[in-house]
Amino acid sequence: MLYFDNASTTKISPNSLNAFIKASEKFYNPSALYMPSIEVKKDIEDARNFFITALNGSAGSTFIFTGSATESNNAVLASNITRKDKKYLISSGEHSSIYECAKHYLEQGYNIKFIPLLKNGCVDSEALFKELDKDTAFVSVIHVSNETGAINNIKEITSHIKNYNKNIVVHSDGVQAVGKLKINLKDLGVDYYTISAHKINGPKGIGGLYIAHPNKFKPLILGGGQELGLRSGTENAPNIMAFKTALSEVEINDFSKHKLALLNELKTDYLLVSKDNCANNIISLCFKGVRGETIEHMLEEKGFLIGTGSACNSKAGYNRVLNNIVPKEFLPGAVRISFGKDLSVEDCKKLGQELTRAVNTYREKIN
Amino acid sequence: MLYFDNASTTKISPNSLNAFIKASEKFYNPSALYMPSIEVKKDIEDARNFFITALNGSAGSTFIFTGSATESNNAVLASNITRKDKKYLISSGEHSSIYECAKHYLEQGYNIKFIPLLKNGCVDSEALFKELDKDTAFVSVIHVSNETGAINNIKEITSHIKNYNKNIVVHSDGVQAVGKLKINLKDLGVDYYTISAHKINGPKGIGGLYIAHPNKFKPLILGGGQELGLRSGTENAPNIMAFKTALSEVEINDFSKHKLALLNELKTDYLLVSKDNCANNIISLCFKGVRGETIEHMLEEKGFLIGTGSACNSKAGYNRVLNNIVPKEFLPGAVRISFGKDLSVEDCKKLGQELTRAVNTYREKIN
Repeated sequence: MLYFDNASTTKISPNSLNAFIKASEKFYNPSALYMPSIEVKKDIEDARNFFITALNGSAGSTFIFTGSATESNNAVLASNITRKDKKYLISSGEHSSIYECAKHYLEQGYNIKFIPLLKNGCVDSEALFKELDKDTAFVSVIHVSNETGAINNIKEITSHIKNYNKNIVVHSDGVQAVGKLKINLKDLGVDYYTISAHKINGPKGIGGLYIAHPNKFKPLILGGGQELGLRSGTENAPNIMAFKTALSEVEINDFSKHKLALLNELKTDYLLVSKDNCANNIISLCFKGVRGETIEHMLEEKGFLIGTGSACNSKAGYNRVLNNIVPKEFLPGAVRISFGKDLSVEDCKKLGQELTRAVNTYREKIN
Repeated sequence: MLYFDNASTTKISPNSLNAFIKASEKFYNPSALYMPSIEVKKDIEDARNFFITALNGSAGSTFIFTGSATESNNAVLASNITRKDKKYLISSGEHSSIYECAKHYLEQGYNIKFIPLLKNGCVDSEALFKELDKDTAFVSVIHVSNETGAINNIKEITSHIKNYNKNIVVHSDGVQAVGKLKINLKDLGVDYYTISAHKINGPKGIGGLYIAHPNKFKPLILGGGQELGLRSGTENAPNIMAFKTALSEVEINDFSKHKLALLNELKTDYLLVSKDNCANNIISLCFKGVRGETIEHMLEEKGFLIGTGSACNSKAGYNRVLNNIVPKEFLPGAVRISFGKDLSVEDCKKLGQELTRAVNTYREKIN
């Protein structure tokens, strides 16, 4: 079975799993006072510093470990969406953990503006900049789209916003960016940045949140004051060590040959959603007159696992992000293909051929 | 090194770790549509049903997996503390993840009443019942105190409250109760019940929340709508399977001989905080004229790891729960000893002897 859904989740790497197992031996609660606990505490602080350094966080910044990227995203909104006289700008291409949460604040009467997307899947930055005014307090723009692979130019967006008013807080969800782009947070200039372990061959159940100004962050989860008082709950040292290992193993792979090989073999009508300015590990394709779910099942029978869009959107019944940028008749036939380093160019060729066969077979049967 | 701090955290059991490793092989995102994902989804739903059955949840109830018991507790308060014209009753003996969170709502202007404790560490149920009025919407009382081991009679408390007004929502934090008492949630009659994996030889980074009336629960963490729409974030199948294994292995051990052996050897002045109605795996002791932290270090040198109160309270600088029930002069000399099944009665005797020696040595040096 060839796995073409790496953007959804990846398998924990052997080294990451070993780090988990090794850290499980040191099971002592890091908040206790005896020596084995203090050692665990030190391991965690070392890991925190490793993340800040690896992502090139700015001076005075910190990084906290959370239960998931979804929690990180929710925590950023909870800390920043606090006043009904302020305006909050959210890109329409955000992951559901930002989008659904922002919709909730909108329903509570907060002034949330969703910024439209361009046809290429990027946020419409001109539309975003036009919304900036004296009430604007916060902006969230995803770094790499989990649906289309579209890369937003976060550095340029942040720089424009900060030039307008340096007090406007900027968040970017970098879950799909880590491992695909070189991340330099100081350079991006963001106040918050979200990352996830299970997208980079780390374990599930752990996310991270970069916080440029820790004294301005109000925690979502209160209690024992762990994670520098910014996220309570007993520290999950095994997952933290496994996450650290996963990040240290990240290699930025160029999948452009894979992408090309697949598209070259795709001999049927299709719409390629994000062409330019797109992470080359994700291909978002739409086929008119077919159902993505059926194509997915047909390919599974042939030994290929592909996505039908982000798993986090699977309950919505339609693809919210694509709905913004793709003509209606293409929506039911959306599939998402994403590459991991274990796939060869030859594998991608074969997928292109099978995908052609499946789409054509489906269309013949229907007509 | 003998570990006498089981109430703080326990080592993951070999079977629980194996379940984690095995489930890590099935890494597919449970929300995807292909068969291997559907299998993972089924594993998770089977685990959910296992928890509901094992804890004897009432008809129509459910159980969700969270990132920690702290998150579960925060989620219960967020779902229930929503109106400023209502009254919310919180026991003073709650874990910091309820207490600090409730204090936060108090600071936001919500009507939170903290109910005092009796000298034995139990909530003063008479005082609690006196506070019940037409505005009372919610009550939270911890099942077994993480500080003193005091057992609150949740069945009696819930029954009294529900007789007064069946619409008052009752939550109990059962983190320290699972594995110490037989849990029957239908019998307890609570609306919410919190549990944790890492207190019962399961992994860190996973908690659970029993929800008697799922349609009344408003999620704390929004996004992809996982966990029946009640808690978003990619399902952590490896941790869920490891938690299930840990719960299936739970044995209720009687540590009364251990406790007696220790206390029989304790030949110095001490105050035993919760005597009657106390879980027999926890001993909360206070020594006048000594510092708990120093005693902890002296015992560590002799090969015994003990607690100085809940690790989740270690940042407060004093023990908030004991502060309610113990004379001031006893507070600095508080230690918490808790037993796990790998400790023999002989180990406990030795600890009693070393503890006597440490306390007496300290007192001699000071005087």
